[in-house]
Amino acid sequence: MQRLPGVGPKSAQRLALHILKRPESEVEALAQALIDAKKQVGLCQVCYHLSSEPVCDICRNLNRDNTTICVVADSRDVIALEKTREYKGKYHVLGGVISPMDGIGPEQLTIQALVKRVSQQQPKEVIMAISPSVEGETTTLYLGQLLKPFTKVTRIAFGLPVGGDLEYADEITLARALEGRRELD
Amino acid sequence: MQRLPGVGPKSAQRLALHILKRPESEVEALAQALIDAKKQVGLCQVCYHLSSEPVCDICRNLNRDNTTICVVADSRDVIALEKTREYKGKYHVLGGVISPMDGIGPEQLTIQALVKRVSQQQPKEVIMAISPSVEGETTTLYLGQLLKPFTKVTRIAFGLPVGGDLEYADEITLARALEGRRELD
Repeated sequence: MQRLPGVGPKSAQRLALHILKRPESEVEALAQALIDAKKQVGLCQVCYHLSSEPVCDICRNLNRDNTTICVVADSRDVIALEKTREYKGKYHVLGGVISPMDGIGPEQLTIQALVKRVSQQQPKEVIMAISPSVEGETTTLYLGQLLKPFTKVTRIAFGLPVGGDLEYADEITLARALEGRRELD
Repeated sequence: MQRLPGVGPKSAQRLALHILKRPESEVEALAQALIDAKKQVGLCQVCYHLSSEPVCDICRNLNRDNTTICVVADSRDVIALEKTREYKGKYHVLGGVISPMDGIGPEQLTIQALVKRVSQQQPKEVIMAISPSVEGETTTLYLGQLLKPFTKVTRIAFGLPVGGDLEYADEITLARALEGRRELD
């Protein structure tokens, strides 16, 4: 139990004791649900988002804009972006970011598939939506170089979070917000 | 003591008891320092930033770019932006944001002085750096309309804070980050 994310020794004990107290049928149902989920949920063949079908709901949705691909590190990011209800295009899930320290190079990610997809589909725009860590920045710039021959490559804006206070923003964020300023319309 | 910002009943009692324990000379020195600070620190005649001189250090600094004015709500924001060491222009402190609920209209702020300053100085750019609350947005848009006849008006970027994780960003911030995307260079 302790190997689960966010579960420390105390929570692990609590979870284990809780399970021991439940009726056997309930525990079996949970175990079966875990196995089924693992068996049924795979990756979309097109965008590598989690999906119980060979091609995911978003890729199959004909109402979505086929000319924009939003590149994210993880399936969690697709879910976060979908919650905004602002984005109507398709996605591409890299499965992580380039991080030589952790032994993750471009080959470990779905970068080759992305380049192939972009060169074949020729979308109007590829939006890089990768968290601005050192590794994230590296990945964004690397992919930018790879994809620019085929299409326009943009990246999401960095700056002040909405509802945030100027005073409480860190210096780098403020500097980025200044640098990324735009004309008022 | 309880009227000071961030001081609740318990802290107020602690502060009061601490002062009662100190020697009288020390207490008098603190009281005098408060009075002196209040007397000596006024507002810069040009930009309304806090200043012990009639015109503040930033306005008097000849090395700073005179063709850019950054408009902020409060002197605290000037201090925050100065910490980034990125901005080399001048400032204008509004003294708050337009907030009809609190009885703060354009007349209560230094807006008239700003419009006069911009129309006379004709800077190349006015950067609106106001926190993105409802009142802040109103103030930004209102000032944009007033200043556009004289100069280019820009605003700082809203989006993901640097080091922030896509997954943890709220939906509005993510939507703004998407909307404000820029081409990779």
